[in-house]
Parts: sequence; structure tokens; C-alpha cells
Amino acid sequence: MPAIIIKPDRLLADLHRLRTFGAYKTGVHRPTYSPEDMAARRWLVARMQEAGLSSRMDGIGNIVGENTAARRRLLVGSHSDSQNHAGWLDGAMGVIYGLEIARAFVESGTPGGAGVDAAVFADEEAHFASFLGSRSAIGALDEDEIDIARNLTTGETLREALADAGLADLDRRAIDPSQYLGYLEAHIEQGDDLEARGLKLGVVTCIVGIHQYRVRFSGASNHAGTTRMAIRRDAGAALVSFAHAINERFRQLAAERTVWTVGNIRLDPGQVSIIPNHAEMLLQVRDADPAVLARMRAALEHLVALTRQAGPCGVELEILAQSEPHEMSCHFQDALGNAASRMAPGRWQRMPSGAGHDAQILARIMPAGMLFVPSIGGVSHHVDEDTREDDIVLGCEVLAAACSQILETKGEQT
Amino acid sequence: MPAIIIKPDRLLADLHRLRTFGAYKTGVHRPTYSPEDMAARRWLVARMQEAGLSSRMDGIGNIVGENTAARRRLLVGSHSDSQNHAGWLDGAMGVIYGLEIARAFVESGTPGGAGVDAAVFADEEAHFASFLGSRSAIGALDEDEIDIARNLTTGETLREALADAGLADLDRRAIDPSQYLGYLEAHIEQGDDLEARGLKLGVVTCIVGIHQYRVRFSGASNHAGTTRMAIRRDAGAALVSFAHAINERFRQLAAERTVWTVGNIRLDPGQVSIIPNHAEMLLQVRDADPAVLARMRAALEHLVALTRQAGPCGVELEILAQSEPHEMSCHFQDALGNAASRMAPGRWQRMPSGAGHDAQILARIMPAGMLFVPSIGGVSHHVDEDTREDDIVLGCEVLAAACSQILETKGEQT
Repeated sequence: MPAIIIKPDRLLADLHRLRTFGAYKTGVHRPTYSPEDMAARRWLVARMQEAGLSSRMDGIGNIVGENTAARRRLLVGSHSDSQNHAGWLDGAMGVIYGLEIARAFVESGTPGGAGVDAAVFADEEAHFASFLGSRSAIGALDEDEIDIARNLTTGETLREALADAGLADLDRRAIDPSQYLGYLEAHIEQGDDLEARGLKLGVVTCIVGIHQYRVRFSGASNHAGTTRMAIRRDAGAALVSFAHAINERFRQLAAERTVWTVGNIRLDPGQVSIIPNHAEMLLQVRDADPAVLARMRAALEHLVALTRQAGPCGVELEILAQSEPHEMSCHFQDALGNAASRMAPGRWQRMPSGAGHDAQILARIMPAGMLFVPSIGGVSHHVDEDTREDDIVLGCEVLAAACSQILETKGEQT
Repeated sequence: MPAIIIKPDRLLADLHRLRTFGAYKTGVHRPTYSPEDMAARRWLVARMQEAGLSSRMDGIGNIVGENTAARRRLLVGSHSDSQNHAGWLDGAMGVIYGLEIARAFVESGTPGGAGVDAAVFADEEAHFASFLGSRSAIGALDEDEIDIARNLTTGETLREALADAGLADLDRRAIDPSQYLGYLEAHIEQGDDLEARGLKLGVVTCIVGIHQYRVRFSGASNHAGTTRMAIRRDAGAALVSFAHAINERFRQLAAERTVWTVGNIRLDPGQVSIIPNHAEMLLQVRDADPAVLARMRAALEHLVALTRQAGPCGVELEILAQSEPHEMSCHFQDALGNAASRMAPGRWQRMPSGAGHDAQILARIMPAGMLFVPSIGGVSHHVDEDTREDDIVLGCEVLAAACSQILETKGEQT
């Protein structure tokens, strides 16, 4: 197969053009189905068509730009919606990589019948629901869920948003996994691990599992001046003590990359002079190893039991979500690693993804792989989010080379 | 002086009549200047007049029922507003004691020129501002403060509320301390100390000082999945660790009756997947001993300094309020103790008040004393708040006897 040549200037120009839709300070504000998001999607459809891809948007806002001449295909893409008032590269970079690599395969004449289709998913950032677009694309989104979903910021129903975006009368299209060797997605790292190690590329081994809990404490509300410490049933004090113990215990149990976060705490009634009768906290744990997640969960349950036994407050553990780690294809990891070794020798590593990505959804129906490029300062979900231009170009070249290898290998096998 | 005879049936009947204004479940909902509160106040004015007292309401809703025949007087009362959806005795009991004792002195013919004036203060429960009525009565409430105050629940301005209550055109009346030997107030304990010790009466030694703090932690918001534990600046984790350390340290430093409460905690942005960049907690400490309050404060400041030094989060301590303990008159304590020893031998104690009361405001301009009766189960600020009827009657008899003694003693001295 001839080398697939991506054009850095065109890649960067398209990426900067996408940035103009919903530009906000140095970042973008492009919530799913907003006018800015829809304008960006229509521009992407047109840009794919200019590249010789057969492209259209479906009823959930997903776009697939097909190389109709290809007999062996990979799907490459990401999402084009952004978080509110956030960065310009999250999702967008992977989308433009897909466009550029699909375009490069067309320009190379779809060599040996090998081609790339470009994919753009909707609402990975969960303005309405987590992985809305990619779940629709694999047939894992019910109409019932669409009926009840609302925009978390504005409260608008998903049905209204789809109607306003002109999508209400379009069919939702499922991706046929038999048409693809697999799915590849590039993304900014959103952490500082690559930068801290002086590396340029991360080959994702798996996307971490996420366990999410709510812990509720029940006590008795009473006057904060007249109620002796000895007889209090202070739900807030119980929460503080529990959260401290969990932080201590998790520190002992954590693996190298385990992360956990208490993202919210609420005390009721929340008055300075009233002993809280109710307190709750949200706790999230992430790790790539199911065994680590399991032992953190066991420690949590143990501490809940101890706390309940010790009193004086009640405690309830609610499991909000438990996603297990999603393995990336070993074959794709090797292809990405080979390309990285050639083009950035000694400057890449294998690593888990601490964040969720559309790739974990596509992985349910076909082999999937992911490539990370460094985030400057580890910053994401913020207008300061950025990546060096040469790193952006290198990432696309490595992803294109990996696509070539996968398509070539598979060609030889068949 | 002939014995002052209070009438238990009349006392309880008036107390139950007051309970009907704003009745809510087994408690009352009588927020300051609500139609129910104003109806109750108008009824109290009328009831005082029926008792032969010269009674009227002033421009802040305070009522004084004067025994115009008396040459030596005490002021006895409390507040008639309630917390929202709260108990029937908080404030109300002390108000009806004032009415009954003032009435009993009139019925005894104001013996030797000794009499009691009944006082009813407004908004002790701080729907608009702490001790609004009693501060007005001692000349410690500016018009400027009235201009800006709003109802904490409804947002209504105080000016609007006063106008709606028909009080806008009335003068506010200051109490002349030269007219009184002092102020006495009875109240439910609002704690369980008397009940736990099997006692019937508490003679208040002082009203505790309250130190109120806000502690703010500043960190860096970041992705909860991709940001390694080692580089996090998690303001929420800093708060949990700090709150735990404070609870441990305060336990060591506390005196027998010291209480402290973390009444509220807030993490920003409060999302399960975002590391909090800001966290804050409200902390309140109460004790009767200024030295204890001072050592708790020193420990707090020391921990703030240690936390700031250790990093990685910033921490700021803000002092929201620092009231020092308010001493009750020794002479009044002795008079209350003598009466209690006669009428409930071995069943009373001296004790501090953990809650704030109008008596601490009146204490700024004249001697003040307080008497507590037991709260069943220590419950207050709740519809379950209650006190045994014989305890209610006993409290009024003891307070009346103490008034007699104080007025008699002072009479002999002059």
C-alpha cells in the first residue's frame, strides 16, 4: 500500500475553521444541537463531500462520511460538541483527524480497496445523556430515553432540541459492524502524564472503569447551641469522619493510576445554627483494573458497615453507576505502537484513558483503539485547553500510519 | 409583701390560646409580621389591657404592658414570633409568664408599689435580623438596618412587612432602664440537660458566646478521570481533611459544655466528575467561658496556618461573628435559686444557656436573669417541642416568687 499522506496545513486549517463555530475566548462554547453546533455539523458534512466522501447527518446528529469505493474500511472519528465554555480540541481534534485521514485515503485512490470512513458523534459531552450519539450509532439508545432526556443546563427537552435543530424527521442510522475492521479515535490526553514524562503520544490500553456512589448519612436536626455533643446525631460530622476515613483507606489500596473524587457534599438543612440531620456525598472511583475497583468497593462497603454499627448516625450506600474498564484492541494497540515507534521513537507509551470516550461505546460492536496527544499543562474542559501544533500533526500522521497498517494486514489476511 | 398568686388554669389557657395563632400540626408557624403573628400580638395587647395593664404595640411590633400604679418595677417577657413550622413554646411560654405575673401583681394590688410590666419582643427568631425587637427596645437598631433587612425565607423587605402589618406609621419605643430593676425571662431549655439529670428548673448563669467562622479552600478544578492524585489541588479533599482535624482537636480542647457545629459545606462546581476548585464550610463554636472560646479560636487559626503551609490548596479563615458570653445578674440568679430551692428543692441547677435570647440584649442596659424549664426529649425548633404542664406551671410560680423577692429586697434597700 502506498503511504497515506496527510497534509498538515490543511489539517490545521480545518481544525481552526471548526474552532470558529461557537468561538468563546480562547476556547469554544458548542453545546449539542445549539445553532453553533449544528452549523459546525453542516460544515463537516460539506467538507466531507468536498473530500469525495458520501456524507450525511442522521436523526441524532451523527455524521458518517463514507468512502464508497473501499472494500475494507476503518471508521475514524470523535465528537464535535463541546462542554459549555470549554476547550477547542476536546473531540474536535479527533473529528478533523477522521476527516483528514479519510480524505488522504481518497486522494491516494483508496489503495487496494482500503479506505477510511470519517465519523462525527453527537453529545459525547452529555448535555442530554452520556454518549448519546455513539450509543444511537450502535443501536443502544431507546426512543423512551429520547422522550425523557433534557438539557442539563437549559432544561430543554431532547425532542424539542432535535426539532429545533431540524433533525426530528431524520432517521437514526445504526453502524453496521460487519462493514468495518474497527474504530479508531484520537483525543487530547486531558491529563499531564505525557507532558510530565516528555512524551508525544499515548496508545490507549483501555478506558478506565468508573464506579460512582452516593453515601447518605441520617441523623437528627437540633439546636446547635443547646444540644450537648454527647447526645448529638450530627449527619454532617458523620460524613466528615467517613470521607476522611475513605481518603485514608483508598490511599492504601490505590494502584498507580487509581483516582477518586468526592465531587459534591451537601448538608441539610445547611444552616449555621442547626445540627444537620441529613448529609450526602458523591464519590467516584476510576481505574483500569477491575480488581482494583472491586477492592475499593469492598473497602467502601466495609466502612459503611463499620460506620452503621458504630452509630449514632445511619448510613446508606447507593451505587449510582458501575462501568467496568473497556479494553482497547491489542491488534490496534500494536499498530498504533508500531507507527509511534517509527515516527516518534522513544517518545510514546501505552496508557489507560482516565476519561470516557465514544471509543468505549464503539468497542461494544467492533475492535476499537485510541491515540492520545499531550495536553499542555494537563488542562481540559477549560478555555485554556491546548496542544502544540507539531504534536497535533504528529498524532494525525501516526494515526494515519496505523490505519494503513491495519487495513494492509487485514488485506493480507483475507 | 403578700404572696403573688399565679393561676395555673389561666396561665395554661392563655398559652393554649396563643398556640391557636398559626397552629401548624402540633406546633406553630408564626413568622414575624405574618398575619398570624400580628393577630397574636393584637390579642396579647388586648389580654394585657383586660389584666389592667396599660398596653400598646410600637413601630417594630414590640409590646409593653405597664403596671402604671407601680413605683418599683421589673420587666418580664420574651418573644411571640416563632421559627418557621416550629414549636409552640419557644418564646410563647415566656410571654405568657410575663402576662400572668404582671396580672398577678395587679390582682395583689401592686403591693408596696411593686409591679411587673409584661414585655413581648418581635423577631427574636431573626426572620429579618437577629434580636430585631429587643435591639430596637434598647436603642441598638438603626433605621439603616431596617432599610436593608429582608425576610430570609420570602425575600420581602422589612419596610414592606412593617407596612403590611400596619406598623409603618408607629414610633419605635425605647425602654428606659431607669424605670426597671431589671429584666427576667423564662424559656424552655431547648436541650436535654435538665431532663437527663431529672431536674425541673435551670437558673441561667450566662448566655454562651458564639464564634462563627467561614473557612474557604481554593484549589484547581480539573477532570476527575485524567488528573493524577499526585498533582491534584482538590479543595474538597482539603476541606474534609481540615474538618476532620478540627473535630479531633476541638474534642481535646472542649470544656464540659462546649459545642461546635459544621452546619454547612459547599463544594464547587459540585459535579461528580470534576475536582472541586473551591470548598467552604460554616463552623460555629459556643461556650460560656471566653477563655475556652479563645483557645478554640487559637487552635483553628493554628490549623489554618498549618494547612496553608502544607498546601496544595489555599485556605482562608473568615470570622463571621464573635459574641462574647453574656453574664446574668448574680442577684437575680440568687433570687431565682432561692425560689427554686423552696418550690423544687434539689430539683434545680445553675447552667449556661447554649442558645441566644432577648435577655442578652436587655442585659446591655439593665440587670437580666433567665429561668429554664425542661424540654421533653431536648427537642426544640420542631413541632414536637413540648414541656410537661406541671413543669410549665412550676416555672411560672418560681419566676413569680423570684420577682417578688427582687422587688421586695430592693424596696427594703431604698
